[in-house]
Amino acid sequence: MPSDVLPETLVVGGGIGGLSAALCLALRGGTVTLVERSKSFAEVGAGIQLAPNATRILRRLGVLEKIQPVVVRPRRLVLADAIEGRELTSLDLTDFPDRYGAPYLVLHRNDLLSALLEGCRSNGVALHTDAHVTALEDTGSGVTAGCADGREFRAGIAIGADGLHSRIRKLFADDEPVNSGFVAYRGAVPMEQVERHADLRDVIAWLGPGLHLVQYPLRSGRMYNQVAVFRSQAYLRGDPDYGNPAELKEAFAGCSEHVRESLGTLSIDNRWPMLDRPPIPGWACGRLALLGDAAHPMLQYLAQGACQALEDADALAEELAAAGQANRTPAEGLAAYAARRAPRAMRVQRTARTWGEIWHVDGVAKLIRDELLQMRDVADHKHVAWLYDEAPPERSTS
Amino acid sequence: MPSDVLPETLVVGGGIGGLSAALCLALRGGTVTLVERSKSFAEVGAGIQLAPNATRILRRLGVLEKIQPVVVRPRRLVLADAIEGRELTSLDLTDFPDRYGAPYLVLHRNDLLSALLEGCRSNGVALHTDAHVTALEDTGSGVTAGCADGREFRAGIAIGADGLHSRIRKLFADDEPVNSGFVAYRGAVPMEQVERHADLRDVIAWLGPGLHLVQYPLRSGRMYNQVAVFRSQAYLRGDPDYGNPAELKEAFAGCSEHVRESLGTLSIDNRWPMLDRPPIPGWACGRLALLGDAAHPMLQYLAQGACQALEDADALAEELAAAGQANRTPAEGLAAYAARRAPRAMRVQRTARTWGEIWHVDGVAKLIRDELLQMRDVADHKHVAWLYDEAPPERSTS
Repeated sequence: MPSDVLPETLVVGGGIGGLSAALCLALRGGTVTLVERSKSFAEVGAGIQLAPNATRILRRLGVLEKIQPVVVRPRRLVLADAIEGRELTSLDLTDFPDRYGAPYLVLHRNDLLSALLEGCRSNGVALHTDAHVTALEDTGSGVTAGCADGREFRAGIAIGADGLHSRIRKLFADDEPVNSGFVAYRGAVPMEQVERHADLRDVIAWLGPGLHLVQYPLRSGRMYNQVAVFRSQAYLRGDPDYGNPAELKEAFAGCSEHVRESLGTLSIDNRWPMLDRPPIPGWACGRLALLGDAAHPMLQYLAQGACQALEDADALAEELAAAGQANRTPAEGLAAYAARRAPRAMRVQRTARTWGEIWHVDGVAKLIRDELLQMRDVADHKHVAWLYDEAPPERSTS
Repeated sequence: MPSDVLPETLVVGGGIGGLSAALCLALRGGTVTLVERSKSFAEVGAGIQLAPNATRILRRLGVLEKIQPVVVRPRRLVLADAIEGRELTSLDLTDFPDRYGAPYLVLHRNDLLSALLEGCRSNGVALHTDAHVTALEDTGSGVTAGCADGREFRAGIAIGADGLHSRIRKLFADDEPVNSGFVAYRGAVPMEQVERHADLRDVIAWLGPGLHLVQYPLRSGRMYNQVAVFRSQAYLRGDPDYGNPAELKEAFAGCSEHVRESLGTLSIDNRWPMLDRPPIPGWACGRLALLGDAAHPMLQYLAQGACQALEDADALAEELAAAGQANRTPAEGLAAYAARRAPRAMRVQRTARTWGEIWHVDGVAKLIRDELLQMRDVADHKHVAWLYDEAPPERSTS
């Protein structure tokens, strides 16, 4: 039964953010069309971390239950020294349900996508693949999206969830992706191919000067996820072939045996330059709004990309419903969504950049960083509570 | 009564190190001649900090009692943020006599020099000023020192205590002073000229990116000592007029009002480039040995320059006496002195460099540093105990 308070919505982009937004709206009775440029809803990539700020939303969406068989509930987040191979500090994750009201999970990106997709399908979202939106117009009374193949979609509002290289963001800002000069190789491999691994109950990040390696198990421990990231000297020199596998190996040459050996099972099929964009607060304009990476692409150091997209999706549906119930316009609903979400997402973007710097320091800064991490009380949550806590009660939206 | 175990000693240099060495040897009955290049035993400079590793030696020398009327016993060592003007951490100094068996003191350099000089005089050290040693020879059976004015001094051994620009060190190493690129302005002013000051019971170091200001009271609080240090951009550019007062003012322009105003009472008569040298372990060769800054010139960040010279003086006298009592040669005594002292002094040199880097960090490193300092338990002495503790019991010198 269509909602009488939610505008008919076109979601552009079928990644985690777009599918989550479509599902959130559909579950509130909204009529949603989602268009995805690719031929299918699979993502290249591997593991994903979901913190309580994301899993409590997934629980409300009924998705948490669906992914339960394929998630891993890690015991700890561990920061370790990639050079000396010793642990620096850790965060106990086992008490997260008590502390934050939701668990910390890791899983394969495609398992999350499948569950979101299944939710969209069973809640009546109209899904279109191979639909590349090349024109999007706010007509004043609605939106019109034109595809490269001539198809046209109409709705009351449109959500640009078209990722880092968002075409729709161009309507909001004239910025470009910022290359951090770091390159990632990532992938998940069957556990039987892995000779050595860290404690399978942990998510572990090995930190070194200008590099790091993140490792954790997926799919009930049947797969091992690895992400190796390093500052490319070739990029700094302007070499277009920057960050190739030879440079990867060279970058990690000074690391501990465990870290070096881990590279042997790392997929080198894709080189991922690590990009973000400067934070912008203006995600909504008239009947259009941005969501997920299109709104706030961030570096991966807080593992919050998908989590923030889920927060967007949840807030979007809530603000649109609140606007409808209060007889405010959809545009006012989108503005309320952006006003509510932008400050926090911008903070996460900025903190992710800073956290990346902290992970990669060298020299005396590394000396201080390691001392700080080792001195840190492992029971102290002051650096993460702001991320994982339930959002403060909704402002009154007068 | 001359000692029958100590060799007759020529000390070259009448600074804190040279006078301390002469006094230590004289108190053990040694026959000591000290030659100083200048016309008097006054030092340009201002305040000096004496940690327990120095004051416990001064107590044994009878000097602590003499300087008592002119010292200040500060309550705390404080590290503060020069930009934001807030305290970062502190170390309580009031329990030092209980904890380390000796107090932490600050005083005017000349007050310490006077007391050491008085000790030398009353214990029969032959003191010669205006004696510029230009040639020093180990003859195998003794040493001969020739002065610029033709005077010649002979002794059983010679100690090169001729400071950072030591001429005698050239016999041991071909290094040169290393310019850190930092420049200091320092001086003590009568308290009535000081409009604003930090708590007079504290030694306070204001830390900023590429700069710091140290302040503490002298002479029972009648004078105020200030040292302003900054990284000279002009030095980095190769400008010979680097670190001039205009650059000083510019470097501190972004500091808190208190720090900026303090520069108004700072003496700008002397620009002091901050120099040290690489650590070397070989301080003794035959009948010659180095001591104090000639052996281990260090950056000032641990305030250990004079303290380490006092440790040298004490160890030198002890090792020479031990060698004499065991019928070992003076050269063996000097070798034992160097072997005992060099590892520690080299560690202090290296740590002073690192500490300087930590004081002057910027960006994310400053963020981490400030967090670490603020998180630090003020009762934790792990970073200083190795400096201030009584040296471990003397090794058996077989």
